[in-house]
Amino acid sequence: MPSASLSSAKQKEAANKEITETEQNMNIIEFEPVGRRGECPENESLLDSARHLDVDIVRLCNGVGACGRCKVQIVTGEVSPITAKEKEVLTKKELERNYRLACLTRALGNVKVHVPPESLTAPQRTQVEGLELDVAPEPFFQSVSVELAPPTIENQLADETNLLDALNRAGADARSFDLEALRRVSPLLRAENWRARVAVRDGEVIAVENVNIRWCGLAVDIGTTKIAVYLVDMESGKTLASKGLMNPQISYGEDIVSRISAASRSAESADKLQALLVEALNEAITSLCTEAGVDRNGIVDAVIVGNTAIHHLFLKIPVNQLGLAPYVPALRAEIDVKARDLGLEIAAGAYIHLLPNIAGYVGADHVAMILGTSIAEASGVTLAIDIGTNTEICLNNRGEMASVSCASGPAFEGAHIKHGMRAASGAIEHVRLSGDQLAIQTIGGAPPAGICGSGLLDVAAQMRLNDVMDSSGKMLPHPMVRVREDGMKEFVLAERPGKEDITISQKDIRQLQLAKAAIRLGIRALVEEMGIVESDIDEVIIAGAFGTFIDVESAITIGMLPPLPRERFRQVGNAAGTGARLALISLNERRKTAAMAARVRYVELAAISEFNHKFAASSAMTML
Amino acid sequence: MPSASLSSAKQKEAANKEITETEQNMNIIEFEPVGRRGECPENESLLDSARHLDVDIVRLCNGVGACGRCKVQIVTGEVSPITAKEKEVLTKKELERNYRLACLTRALGNVKVHVPPESLTAPQRTQVEGLELDVAPEPFFQSVSVELAPPTIENQLADETNLLDALNRAGADARSFDLEALRRVSPLLRAENWRARVAVRDGEVIAVENVNIRWCGLAVDIGTTKIAVYLVDMESGKTLASKGLMNPQISYGEDIVSRISAASRSAESADKLQALLVEALNEAITSLCTEAGVDRNGIVDAVIVGNTAIHHLFLKIPVNQLGLAPYVPALRAEIDVKARDLGLEIAAGAYIHLLPNIAGYVGADHVAMILGTSIAEASGVTLAIDIGTNTEICLNNRGEMASVSCASGPAFEGAHIKHGMRAASGAIEHVRLSGDQLAIQTIGGAPPAGICGSGLLDVAAQMRLNDVMDSSGKMLPHPMVRVREDGMKEFVLAERPGKEDITISQKDIRQLQLAKAAIRLGIRALVEEMGIVESDIDEVIIAGAFGTFIDVESAITIGMLPPLPRERFRQVGNAAGTGARLALISLNERRKTAAMAARVRYVELAAISEFNHKFAASSAMTML
Repeated sequence: MPSASLSSAKQKEAANKEITETEQNMNIIEFEPVGRRGECPENESLLDSARHLDVDIVRLCNGVGACGRCKVQIVTGEVSPITAKEKEVLTKKELERNYRLACLTRALGNVKVHVPPESLTAPQRTQVEGLELDVAPEPFFQSVSVELAPPTIENQLADETNLLDALNRAGADARSFDLEALRRVSPLLRAENWRARVAVRDGEVIAVENVNIRWCGLAVDIGTTKIAVYLVDMESGKTLASKGLMNPQISYGEDIVSRISAASRSAESADKLQALLVEALNEAITSLCTEAGVDRNGIVDAVIVGNTAIHHLFLKIPVNQLGLAPYVPALRAEIDVKARDLGLEIAAGAYIHLLPNIAGYVGADHVAMILGTSIAEASGVTLAIDIGTNTEICLNNRGEMASVSCASGPAFEGAHIKHGMRAASGAIEHVRLSGDQLAIQTIGGAPPAGICGSGLLDVAAQMRLNDVMDSSGKMLPHPMVRVREDGMKEFVLAERPGKEDITISQKDIRQLQLAKAAIRLGIRALVEEMGIVESDIDEVIIAGAFGTFIDVESAITIGMLPPLPRERFRQVGNAAGTGARLALISLNERRKTAAMAARVRYVELAAISEFNHKFAASSAMTML
Repeated sequence: MPSASLSSAKQKEAANKEITETEQNMNIIEFEPVGRRGECPENESLLDSARHLDVDIVRLCNGVGACGRCKVQIVTGEVSPITAKEKEVLTKKELERNYRLACLTRALGNVKVHVPPESLTAPQRTQVEGLELDVAPEPFFQSVSVELAPPTIENQLADETNLLDALNRAGADARSFDLEALRRVSPLLRAENWRARVAVRDGEVIAVENVNIRWCGLAVDIGTTKIAVYLVDMESGKTLASKGLMNPQISYGEDIVSRISAASRSAESADKLQALLVEALNEAITSLCTEAGVDRNGIVDAVIVGNTAIHHLFLKIPVNQLGLAPYVPALRAEIDVKARDLGLEIAAGAYIHLLPNIAGYVGADHVAMILGTSIAEASGVTLAIDIGTNTEICLNNRGEMASVSCASGPAFEGAHIKHGMRAASGAIEHVRLSGDQLAIQTIGGAPPAGICGSGLLDVAAQMRLNDVMDSSGKMLPHPMVRVREDGMKEFVLAERPGKEDITISQKDIRQLQLAKAAIRLGIRALVEEMGIVESDIDEVIIAGAFGTFIDVESAITIGMLPPLPRERFRQVGNAAGTGARLALISLNERRKTAAMAARVRYVELAAISEFNHKFAASSAMTML
């Protein structure tokens, strides 16, 4: 290569610079995927280096190796030897994969560190986290660049015929035009000197742009509470930018049932519920396009997932029947609709693809999770749980698949918990109790303002481990348990002079108990349906924003998750978002979903035998 | 049949009634297709009976058998014997087909009379007249009535899956849903006790209605000046109602070039030009549905034709390039667009089909005319002319087809003629001159208000026949020719005391000359292209509202049409409208149009050799 010598010179220059830095006992530490990088003194822990570089890693025990929450993975570079404490806290698998506790590890040179989402405090985590995509892009459309011969008085070719001929000569199978795409053809060809870049989808020309356009796609996971939006380059399959936002429908009720009622009552509300979503998405698209420096007219495909009700509300198809027995969807099959029919401001001829639903309460987001976790392809016994306001669970028992939906409620989002709040600054997210020694960690290290879902799980587990609560969930006498004037017991998490103390009441515990019982009952219903037992499960995949950041040990302690060895659990982030991105970039993946949805047997929780008895059994606040 | 005796009794009763009437020397005369019927005295002429029943038949010579304009066809019943005068005026073919002059014919019993459009005065003629359709309906969609099993808690079928299953069991090949159709499914199934009537188009469910819905279609011919709208029953293929209306785009200019300029100059004008059409069509749909007693949600298909510019303006695709050399269309191919994308208020999931264009000035209406006249299937040499503001002509020379477009201008619509007016009450529509004896007939017999296109042709021909004008079009001395103060000669058609006289000036004659020369040049260009001569033409089909009502003899006299035997001419009414209806009701007919459009060679008039010389030669106001 002619530039070899130059490259080599540059490398040497870089090497010299590194040597200089090393002589000053400074290392360059890079934290992924947050993308922070800087010089840090050699003698400080990776946890401290992270703090210097504004990477907010959890530090519950304040850096003494006790809480085990600051796990990081060493990607490249040399670090201090492993400590006895780490060998105790980390699993064998984690040690094999170069996991360390950041508080007990120092860099011995330039180091690249991967921070898993569960080790970050909430503000740096978003609901857009998910697995990296490792499928080859195989978009749903063909991209063709063409140059045309202008028409003459002797050869009065229509612009459309001229363009179709050129496309077909270039190997595209173009047969028709979207009306909006067609409207752009004549002026564009003349402005761009008869050159164009064209997107052809299933024989239909859906976009005609200048030759520099970058074709992008949009993957969207609309949750009851939160929305994750990904802007993806359709050629490379890489995510160019992503964004998490609140679902603005929340003004119609935090739970989905309120929104179903609202939309059923009046057409205006149904219109508004749809418009709210579309407005929020259009704003997100604007900001993502600005961030990535791309033209929204180049967004030629979109995959959108959500639970069945959200899916229906977004399409503005009736939801009335979702709220009434037998709770059937209006639409189960996958569907392609023109983006403009829903008001989404992307390429005017683009379609939006919505993955299929499975049942009234197991929707397209569940199908996306199945796709995103690859659970359908697992060979043993695999369970995948997407914890949210509604929790959907899928079990693949050696090829036989069933799913269930549990109304876990919004307790994990902080609702119906007196001092509950979302994972925002000041929320207590991690708690340790040892006798009467209480350690709390708030998001961003801010003064405590409330307690979020993962904190709630931690509190309950710590109370149980320290005998502040019995297995029925009843609070027991303890220095931190007090009785309010109304007779209600509460556990004090933070005293705030001049302000109401932050507490967890007996009532709050009952709320948590309902939520966790619903989830555990769901797991058990599936296991029973398959005629196996929980210990047969080889792997538990925990998906979803909330699930990613919970302490699995805490969840096991209170009986929300089955007591399996820690290694069997995998927290994968927003798997529904990952599935949506897979279906976006790969035709092959997209085509799997219809069969996938048809293959999953829906288990109606309300129809299982001895429901009440089993629900009660699942409520026990103990490992069971 | 059990009801035979009853029917028989009724027939007898009717017969008795008829006898009674005959005894009073009254006959029941029925005029078709106007649909008037009533008792008339036996001794009056059919022309007078028509007047009594408000059927406005042309009576230029006031009923003395001289003008030959009151031709009618006797369908059933006995009439007075044929007169010598009629044998002279009517062709052999007409006599064979029971044509008579209404003024010289009396009924000898109950008679049914067909009044051809050219014998009606303008107010009872509309641009919706056309040939009867004789193809078997073969709609573009399947109609399926289904009854579903409601879902249960054990069988939670989605409504869409439930409906698709039922459709496919009933033999429909339904694979997907239009979004708007889908939005109706769930409430409709519940309201209609799980029964529905469904329209499936190419695998897509486009309408879901109650089982009593009547599926209709819409055929529309949008002319530069007038619009014809037909509401058709898709099962029987019968036209339920039809309506002629003005093209409201006329506010942007009478000629198409002004509208092309307006739409090219500003997007707002382009929007408005489209909206004007759609509003007018939506109003027409409302009134047609009311008239026919059908639900507009049952209108599941539409075929729309117009010239290339109108076609583009209706689709709101750019027209700029139509106004600039080399005058190419943005779109040539046929296209299907969702009605809602254009704002047409028919079934929400319906498509609109636009027939293909041929060139920038030979549009979908010409293709429709080719279809409507069956000229493509003619075996000899056939010419079809659609006279309008723009005149398109097609020649089929034993299977080889070519078309041409001539800018005949709006003279026939009354524009650019000093006393010109449209065919409305008071317009002079027929003129006879014999020496200095002038007979005029106005529409509706009203006091003369101006002169319309057919009147203009008649005046020129009569002036020529009476040597009031020479072959160059120059007016000669004559008692009715006077010279105005500005030196301009004019022929006085009607003196109006206290009002300006109605005249035809030398300048008006020049306008007519330009128009007729353009048409004749077009005919000659086609004939020359094929290497034949005009006398080789076996048949001349004259289509279009104006063409239907002209006096062919007059047109031949001034050299607008070639001097062929009168029998070779056929006036067929709105053939483009007929073609649109054919393409609407028959998939087979619709499928012919793409090949038809591709088969027609477009002859560019501006590109023919010695254009100026040939144009001048075509201007001669004489049989040539």
